[in-house]
Formats: sequence, C-alpha cells, structure tokens
Amino acid sequence: MNDLPVGEYAQLLGAQAKAASALMARAPTATKNKALRTLTQLLRANVAQLAVDNALDIARAQAAGLAAPMVDRLKLTPQVIETCALGCEQLAAMPDVIGEIIGMKQQPSGIRVGQMRVPIGVFGMIFESRPNVTIEAASLSIKSGNACILRGGSEAIASNQALARLVQQALVEAGLPAEAVQLVQITDREMVGALITMPQYVDVIIPRGGKGLIERISRDARVPVIKHLDGNCHVYVDDPCDLAMAVTVADNAKTQKYSPCNAAEGLLVARGVAATFLPLIGRIFADKGVEMRVCPQAQALLQPLAGAKLVSATEADWYEEYLAPIISIKVVDGLSEAIAHINQYSSHHTDAILTTDHMHAQRFVREVDSASVMVNTSTRFADGFEYGLGAEIGISTDKFHARGPVGIEGLTSLKYVVLGDGEVRS
Amino acid sequence: MNDLPVGEYAQLLGAQAKAASALMARAPTATKNKALRTLTQLLRANVAQLAVDNALDIARAQAAGLAAPMVDRLKLTPQVIETCALGCEQLAAMPDVIGEIIGMKQQPSGIRVGQMRVPIGVFGMIFESRPNVTIEAASLSIKSGNACILRGGSEAIASNQALARLVQQALVEAGLPAEAVQLVQITDREMVGALITMPQYVDVIIPRGGKGLIERISRDARVPVIKHLDGNCHVYVDDPCDLAMAVTVADNAKTQKYSPCNAAEGLLVARGVAATFLPLIGRIFADKGVEMRVCPQAQALLQPLAGAKLVSATEADWYEEYLAPIISIKVVDGLSEAIAHINQYSSHHTDAILTTDHMHAQRFVREVDSASVMVNTSTRFADGFEYGLGAEIGISTDKFHARGPVGIEGLTSLKYVVLGDGEVRS
Repeated sequence: MNDLPVGEYAQLLGAQAKAASALMARAPTATKNKALRTLTQLLRANVAQLAVDNALDIARAQAAGLAAPMVDRLKLTPQVIETCALGCEQLAAMPDVIGEIIGMKQQPSGIRVGQMRVPIGVFGMIFESRPNVTIEAASLSIKSGNACILRGGSEAIASNQALARLVQQALVEAGLPAEAVQLVQITDREMVGALITMPQYVDVIIPRGGKGLIERISRDARVPVIKHLDGNCHVYVDDPCDLAMAVTVADNAKTQKYSPCNAAEGLLVARGVAATFLPLIGRIFADKGVEMRVCPQAQALLQPLAGAKLVSATEADWYEEYLAPIISIKVVDGLSEAIAHINQYSSHHTDAILTTDHMHAQRFVREVDSASVMVNTSTRFADGFEYGLGAEIGISTDKFHARGPVGIEGLTSLKYVVLGDGEVRS
Repeated sequence: MNDLPVGEYAQLLGAQAKAASALMARAPTATKNKALRTLTQLLRANVAQLAVDNALDIARAQAAGLAAPMVDRLKLTPQVIETCALGCEQLAAMPDVIGEIIGMKQQPSGIRVGQMRVPIGVFGMIFESRPNVTIEAASLSIKSGNACILRGGSEAIASNQALARLVQQALVEAGLPAEAVQLVQITDREMVGALITMPQYVDVIIPRGGKGLIERISRDARVPVIKHLDGNCHVYVDDPCDLAMAVTVADNAKTQKYSPCNAAEGLLVARGVAATFLPLIGRIFADKGVEMRVCPQAQALLQPLAGAKLVSATEADWYEEYLAPIISIKVVDGLSEAIAHINQYSSHHTDAILTTDHMHAQRFVREVDSASVMVNTSTRFADGFEYGLGAEIGISTDKFHARGPVGIEGLTSLKYVVLGDGEVRS
C-alpha cells in the first residue's frame, strides 16, 4: 500500500476513511464502547511488546543525537501506556453524545425543528513526537463516531505503528471497520500537503506541533483547521484583590510547570497594589530562578530583592510565549489598561483576573477576547479534563466551531431535524 | 478614502471594523435595539429617496441590457423596503443572545466552568445583486454585536450606498460607531481578494452568490468561510407512506417555487408504491409543465400520461440543481438505496422522507448526511424564518460551525468562563 505514489496513497486513505465514517456514524453506542474497552485491555496486555517497538524509535533518536527532553517525549513507559488505557476506559464510561437531539420546538407552520448531534465525518490529525497522541486521537474518534487519518512524526513511526495495530485489532474485534483509524505509513512532508487538500474526504484537520507547522497547515489547507497557535497567557492582579490569593495563584500559573501552553507568560499588576504585591511574588520568582522581564515601574519595585533576575522588557516581550522560567511583568493603571493590553498582546488562549471587585470581574469576563477567561484561579486549569470534557484532542485558539479545550463535541456537527405531518409551504 | 490603492483601502476598512467590533461586543442590548428601531424608522421615512437612488442602478442595468429577472432583483420597491424595515423591527424585539452563559458546572477542583456566547468579531459579506441584503446583513450584525464589511455587486452600488448611509446614521444616533457596518466603495474583484485574506481583521467570510464565486472564495480565503454551494434537495417517497400526503408534499417541494435552493430537484420512489404514486404526481407535473428526467422504470410507469415531458435521465441528472421546472425521478428498491443515492448525489442541503414507518423515519434522519433532514414535510421549509431563527444570513452546506439556515447564533462564538476562589493546579 505504501508503494503507491504519495497522492494516490492519500486518496486511498481518504476514500477508505470516508467509507468507514458512514459505518462509524451509525455504530451503536455499545459497539463503540466495546472497541474502547478492548483497546484498554490490549494496551495493558502489550506493555512489554510496545516497549520493544518503542525502543527502535528511542535508539534511532539517540543515534541521531536528539536532545534528551525530545527523546523523553518519545518514551512509551508503562506509566504512559497505563494513562492511555485509563483514558480509553473513561471514554467508554462516558455517555454517547451522538444522536442527541436538542432544542426541538414546534413552529407556527406546525413543523417541529431541532438539531441532532452527529459525527463530523473524517478528521485528519497531524502531530509530532509523543506517540500516545495516537491513542488519544483514536479513542476520541471512536467514541465520537468519526473516522480519522493520523499522521505522526517519523521519529515515532515504530511506536505509532504498534499502537495503531492495537487500535485496529480492537475495532475489528468489536465489529467496526479497521479503516476507521488509519495511521499514515509515509511520514514525508508531501503527505501532509496531500492530506490537507482533500475536502471530498477530510472534513477537518487538527494539527498538533510547533507554530511553524501549524501556520503552514493553516495557510495551505483546503479544509477547516482546528488550530492552536501560541499560549501567551496573562494573570492580571487587580486593585482591589485578595493579596494572599493573588500570590498563590500567580505563582501557580507561572511555576507549577513551565512548558504547558496554559502557563502564564505575562503578569499585569494594578498600580494600587503593585508596591505590596510585587515584592511578595518577586521573592518567590527570585527563589525559583524565574527571570523577570519588567517595565520601569516594576523594575523600581523589584530592584531591592536579593537574587532577582531582572531584565528590562522590550515590546517583543509582551508578545512572547516563553515556555520557560521567564515572565514579563508590567504595572498598569487598572482594569481598562489591563484589558487593552491583553486584547492587544495575548494569543487569546487563556487570561485570568485576580480581584475582589464584582464589577471588575464582570467586565474582564465580558471584554477579554480569549478562548478562556478566568476569575480568581490559575490559567493552568485551561484543560479538557479540568473542564470536565472527559478528554481533549487539543486546545483551539480559533473563534470558529471549537474554541478553547476541544473534547468530543468539537468533533461533532449539528444537523437540523424537521418532523412534520404533511405540512407544505404556502 | 476610495482613492487609496485597493490593498490599503481594505486594510483601513479592516482596522476600522476591528476597532468598532470591540465597542459593538460590549454595547448594551438596549443600545443595539435602539439602532435597529431607528433604522426601521429611517427606512420607512426614506422610501421616496431610496427609489431615486435605486433608479440609477435600474437605468444602468437596463442600458447594459441586463435580463429582466436580473433587473427585477435589483428593485427596491416600497414592499421590499417595508420587508427590510419589518425585519429590523423583529430583530429589535428578539432576546439578545450575547452574554448568555451556558452549562456552568462545578468541577472536582472547585472551579466553575461554563461558556459565554460572544460575537464572532468581524464578518465580511460578499454578495450579488439584491440590495436588500445590505439591510439583512447590517441588522443581523448589529443585533449580534459584530462589525461587518459589506461588499455588494457593482450593479447595485447606488442602492447599497443609500442603504448603508441609513444604517450608519442609525448606528450614530444610537451612540454606536458608524464603522460597525461599512460598505466597500470599490466593487472590483481585487477588493474581494483583499477582504478574504486579512485574518488579522476578518473572522469569517459569508459569500452569497453564484457557485463560481463561492468556489473561488473558498479556495482563496485565508479565513473561515460560511458557504452555501448547491441545493440539490431530494424527496424520497417510502413504502409504506400516506399516498395523498406524499403527492401534496412532493408537489409543494418541487412546484411551489422553482428558483429557491430548498426546492426539490430529485424524487426517489420506493418500488412498492411506484405504480400507484408515480401516475398521481406525474399527472400534476405534466399539468404544470414540469419536465421529468426519469430512470427506465419511472419511464415505463409515466409513459401512458398524456402531455408528460419525459426525458431519459443521465448520471449528470442525479447531481443537477435545476432551479427550474425540471425534476429527476428514480425508482429505488427501498430505504437503503434511497439513503445511499442521497448521500452520493445530494448536495447535503435538505432531504426529506415521506413515510408512515417509524423505523424508516429514524434511519433516514440518522443516516442522511445533510444539513436538514425532514420527515413528512416539504423541503421548502428549510429557511431561517421557518426554523424560528428570527432571521437568516444564509444557508450553510458546511458541517463546521454553522450548518443549515444560519441565524444570529451562527455569527457568535462561545468562550469558556472559569470562576474560582483561588484554586490552583496541583
């Protein structure tokens, strides 16, 4: 099959996915859940074999001189596999949203009009390194009644192939088509170009990877893209606020983990609380080795702290997603300047206000134009599991279709259902 | 302003729309409604002046030798203007969906997570001929708290300019920014190319016009498109069915009006009822001068009818959107063949089953992959007003975001709102 020219191979995968999607769309809930539970068992039963396949990727990565953190992301440890198995088990236990009919209302003509939740059809997922994404995408696809085409990175091909084999085995054992989840066997770039330009077969593309990859896909795709660009998230410490809470939450938002997209990259502080708040949070950042890129006012307030790494912020810092122990800090006049700053510089991912003023909270929630707006809690909560979605295929910074953490509903569409008794239009 | 080069002019419109959209997003409901009611009054008070401006377009169209139906579509008659005025009045009376928070639930961590309905931001509307679309788009944009950029056809430019002036007057009188609704003053094609490639300013493009225009926009756009391609709608007459109802509904779906996208273009008839049903509907079609493009079995059953215009159907007929007194007719084995035929040839706009069998109705609703699926009623009902949406900006044949008739909700986005009491992620 992978001896075909790239274009033909993509067309074949597309046609097979499309055919499988019709069967998946009408698959009974029990059948989809059976596939997920079978996959759970297969993952647990194959920890040793998966380690063998995974070792091939690891060895290749190490031979190629990949950096240690990159190699780590490739690893299918027993713990990673158990997390995948647990995820499948949890999805199996969740209610099925497919077929749900919402808002059925009678109209003046007598017809009854509602909307039925249906699978979106076929989605293409393009991702890098972590092989566990294969299982996350496959399990969400099965539960939501879609078919998917998965194109992982070449660095994880042996692991992805091993996992995809288990997925297809689980599908077939449950009586579902193996082609409902297809792993692309060709990892060259031309294949990505082919996958994103088949609107007749693929309904949406979900890229997960670096900003360059996502921008390229958004630019060239001929189908809708659920995309996630930067996570330049802000915490705004308002006047008035609960200072102790503000310190705890701002610390958590920045330092609980530096690499996730929902970690805070910018801290805005209202002038009225800056003199008390900044030395407190600055002490914590200094102790944890977090570099502070500061405006002149923040500089003046933080200067006295022993051991603080202070750097004058440039315009570029306000836009930056550091994903590192670095944070930009700016003193603002108050709420209006904070909202304006966020709407200008934020990546519209997740932004939080820490305040005790109800009107300020209301205005922030209403006016900040981001996928998640938060009051008195940590940006680190922007996550499908924390939001109760059960699972997450990604976090969208788009406004269209799915916005914020994307769970099963983001992989569905609503079609109108109209029921009548012979009504005609006059 | 329109002396600028096209690209710069588009950027200016975009930047102004973006700035206006922030003000519109936080405009109070009463202010938006005031603008709509003022617009209602202005339309009614300016019927005579609008006729003068409209006459310029009409004269130009006639001088250019435009066909009479095309000239008709340009006309701003007092009746057309009153319909626009009434539409604005009705929108003002509708509840405001902006700011609505849905699904707020407490999560195990203690945070409360819900979704707030917010305007999508800026939409660009590209349309042809009918100048009343200016008012429809502007009024929906105001009610939904968006800003819009309207690019109508050159043939209606004087009428569109006159209407847009009234819209901006209404906005300003209500205390809203005039730039919330901007009519593009340049009607050349380059302007369309510029408008659809400004993701920094425009959140979605809604084209209304011929298939060629829509395909070109979908191909070249760098922002999401809410598009409507064909309306190749089907009526499937099932076995068993209520024959009298089937005749009435099939007749209505085809002949009540030939030009709308929700008129039926294909009639499928189950073999078991074909011998009784086809002569009945065929008599009506023959009397109304509707040409029938038929399969051999339908041909045999319809041949005896005096005056019937019968033509052997080709493969191309099953795909065709006639928008004319022509219908394709095919006898099928039953439900499964009907569903397969529709999913293959339909444009996924609107398809109906006429049946008395509950299981058949259920399967049809579930398995037909169209924006609207109907049971025992006419495809002609696929319409925003008939669905109770209050107004309609278009009918989408996409699966993504908005599907089927698109009302105010299609112009909105949902952002997550997270409320906490100092919770942090552990």
